[in-house]
Amino acid sequence: MSTTTTELDERTTAAEAAAPAWRAASAGTRAAWLRAAADALDAHADELVPLADAETHLGETRLRGEVARTSGQLRLFAGVVEEGAYLEAIVDDADAAATPPRPELRRMLTGVGPVAVFSASNFPFAFSVAGGDTASALAAGNPVIVKAHSGHVHLSRRTAEIVATALVDAGAPIGSLGLVEGREAGEALVRHPSIQAVGFTGSVSGGRALFDLAAGRPDPIPFYGELGSVNPVVLTAGAVAARSPALAEGLVGSFTLGVGQFCTKPGVVFVPRATGFAELVASRVAGAAGGRLLTDRITEAFPEGLAHLEADPSVTLVARGGGGGADAATPTVLATDAAAVAARPDTLLEECFGPVTLLVHYDGPEDLLAALRAVPGSLTATLHSEAGEEVTEVVAVLERRAGRLLFAGWPTGVAVTWSQHHGGPWPATTSLHTSVGATAIRRFLRPVVFQDAPAHLLPEVLRDEALAAIPHRRNGILRIPALRR
Amino acid sequence: MSTTTTELDERTTAAEAAAPAWRAASAGTRAAWLRAAADALDAHADELVPLADAETHLGETRLRGEVARTSGQLRLFAGVVEEGAYLEAIVDDADAAATPPRPELRRMLTGVGPVAVFSASNFPFAFSVAGGDTASALAAGNPVIVKAHSGHVHLSRRTAEIVATALVDAGAPIGSLGLVEGREAGEALVRHPSIQAVGFTGSVSGGRALFDLAAGRPDPIPFYGELGSVNPVVLTAGAVAARSPALAEGLVGSFTLGVGQFCTKPGVVFVPRATGFAELVASRVAGAAGGRLLTDRITEAFPEGLAHLEADPSVTLVARGGGGGADAATPTVLATDAAAVAARPDTLLEECFGPVTLLVHYDGPEDLLAALRAVPGSLTATLHSEAGEEVTEVVAVLERRAGRLLFAGWPTGVAVTWSQHHGGPWPATTSLHTSVGATAIRRFLRPVVFQDAPAHLLPEVLRDEALAAIPHRRNGILRIPALRR
Repeated sequence: MSTTTTELDERTTAAEAAAPAWRAASAGTRAAWLRAAADALDAHADELVPLADAETHLGETRLRGEVARTSGQLRLFAGVVEEGAYLEAIVDDADAAATPPRPELRRMLTGVGPVAVFSASNFPFAFSVAGGDTASALAAGNPVIVKAHSGHVHLSRRTAEIVATALVDAGAPIGSLGLVEGREAGEALVRHPSIQAVGFTGSVSGGRALFDLAAGRPDPIPFYGELGSVNPVVLTAGAVAARSPALAEGLVGSFTLGVGQFCTKPGVVFVPRATGFAELVASRVAGAAGGRLLTDRITEAFPEGLAHLEADPSVTLVARGGGGGADAATPTVLATDAAAVAARPDTLLEECFGPVTLLVHYDGPEDLLAALRAVPGSLTATLHSEAGEEVTEVVAVLERRAGRLLFAGWPTGVAVTWSQHHGGPWPATTSLHTSVGATAIRRFLRPVVFQDAPAHLLPEVLRDEALAAIPHRRNGILRIPALRR
Repeated sequence: MSTTTTELDERTTAAEAAAPAWRAASAGTRAAWLRAAADALDAHADELVPLADAETHLGETRLRGEVARTSGQLRLFAGVVEEGAYLEAIVDDADAAATPPRPELRRMLTGVGPVAVFSASNFPFAFSVAGGDTASALAAGNPVIVKAHSGHVHLSRRTAEIVATALVDAGAPIGSLGLVEGREAGEALVRHPSIQAVGFTGSVSGGRALFDLAAGRPDPIPFYGELGSVNPVVLTAGAVAARSPALAEGLVGSFTLGVGQFCTKPGVVFVPRATGFAELVASRVAGAAGGRLLTDRITEAFPEGLAHLEADPSVTLVARGGGGGADAATPTVLATDAAAVAARPDTLLEECFGPVTLLVHYDGPEDLLAALRAVPGSLTATLHSEAGEEVTEVVAVLERRAGRLLFAGWPTGVAVTWSQHHGGPWPATTSLHTSVGATAIRRFLRPVVFQDAPAHLLPEVLRDEALAAIPHRRNGILRIPALRR
């Protein structure tokens, strides 16, 4: 059931009307609204988790954990708002003796206005109606209109009802959180003059189309998209020699987790040739059960993606798993070599959503580095090496290709913390920002500076008394409230 | 003389080769390089100022001041780099007891890679080869390739020689600063795979074309453009009643400064009807001499822009100045009313570069607010009011339309400080960032996070000892080195 043009206008009008109250809300008020949304999610978990499972087949354990992560994200941003550093308040006092004389300037960040959020298929809570994009946009002081993912529409509607009601009950204005459905309504949302920024998680093709719409507006708006990522993993000779069984176990666990539908799934693994590692992986995959994929479209695309890879003359089948039922996607491991990857990166290094990974055999440092330089921008890059091995150049190359570098770990699992960065060069993301972690709030803020303003016309937070209570910079010096040091 | 494709490839190859050294340079080293560039500019002022005057007609006094501003910008960014807060270092220590267990994460910002800078006609130093975009891009750790403005090519070549030599003499790599000439080379630069971001100052049409190129790349890159701005000024009845002569004097001084070629020129002034203010302005403009505009194109466009405004049936001529020579642009004041502005903002509120301003007569608060809501995004908005007048709503509307709000001042003159924001909603700028002030550096940085990295594989600044010497956040708590508190 698509949202009509009239309904879309109602949503955007309501969001516009709600925007001033969100921007003007004090830190304490806005934080309370975010916590009310978090509490409502937790309180309705027993109702929402079965709805989500019926539409996504992700299972109760995973989905309960995801609800907790989602309410946790909302609470993290409540804390970010209360702490106040996100405002980046900077004051320079007037200096009549300067050449030329310097006026007083007081800068802060403020909400951009209504934000559109496109939710993801693979995280029905954490990257959906009340997920990280919504939490960070609300925290920044903006109403949100979510485009529901077609893979979990019923869950999206119910989540939106619950969260919107909780916000209004907590005192937030009507129009704080809206929902639209259908591809056309989503496109119209990106083009709508009321919308000032877009958050998106999804495919490269879908994200590119919406990015182009956002950039092509008469007044272009920022489009923060998280699209596709192959998440390269590098195993050194030393690591393979020292702990092959654990590496094979870790890899199989990571690329099959959530039926291979994490954006941080390790999709390509660089392995020294002729170490027996592929055989170890094969022995573990043989016993790995598959699972049902999220949507019909993903179910159709998975064998097509496999066929696309297997059509390359360099690609061989290492192993296929088994079991999981008639409609299960089968865990699959393929192999190629570094020279082929360096020659045909567009074919061999395209993201394939689902439980598949590609082993890339390499013959030495130069062979490895040439292939790594062909890896497209990714969310993560992982290195398994041993102390004493020379890996400086590998790290330097990986650091240019990914936003998160992992050492001796696996990329699935993204901690929601102050420091997290979930982003990387195109096509991993469309921007230099993150969609996970405290700094995700920066995407939905714009700077404004007040020159020689009378105190009563300043936003309250920029007046001397309020300013002293938050981290800020004054005349070049960073200051932190004494109680928080 | 246009840069050839071969020459462009040489420049980008050199910039790519220089990038690792810029990124890896310690704060002290990078700051020293920036100061060497600043010192070289100052040392060559006697040579550069006459070159600039011959090409821009801006006069020695203004140009000497601009050299000082430009070297001052470079030194400001040296200080920003040394202080280290711009790195936004954030560390979360591992927590094995968390659910799920949390890895160690260390985040920082790092240079995006080679940056293209398109210099402006109206600031041959401060927004040109070694101007603010270049200074902030270098400070962020990126080589720069400047597209010279056709209005001051000889100055651009000589400035590039002087600064590039100074950088290399100070130990920076060859390829730190390159120069290209010609429109085609500029377009090729934006499309070039080596270029990772663009800074631009210029017209709406030119900026839009390059923005579209940047967004249309197979791998889109951020385009930070400062395009066009009408910089609305609001005079309340109280302000006009209290100090008309000073306001008229200030306005004429501001809109004719630099022959009306500042991006912050007050282009539209909202004045209560029938207060005699227009007559006061007219009496001052009659004695105002014009001046020669920067380029042939601007000289041709100015009368066209005036004719475009005067063709509107609501527009009347208030006054024209005189003198300044045969090739001088004549200071001109036009008038219309708020209803016409609200009805035809596209016609009446288009930026007209040169010494012209449009008085907009209004009849009361509603009439004023309706017109203000039609004002396009601007770099600045200015309010002149008296204590006791109710202006809250006016301030709220202006705050949504501009990046800098001034009170009882004039928008020309942009202090280069930590707090400055020089940006605004489209078409003032293409992004939510600033091109002036310390935070301009943020445009040319990308986040990267290291998960569970051995200390020796971390960038030096993220290791515990170095981290303690800069402002950073650890486990959610902001920390400032003791010596700097």
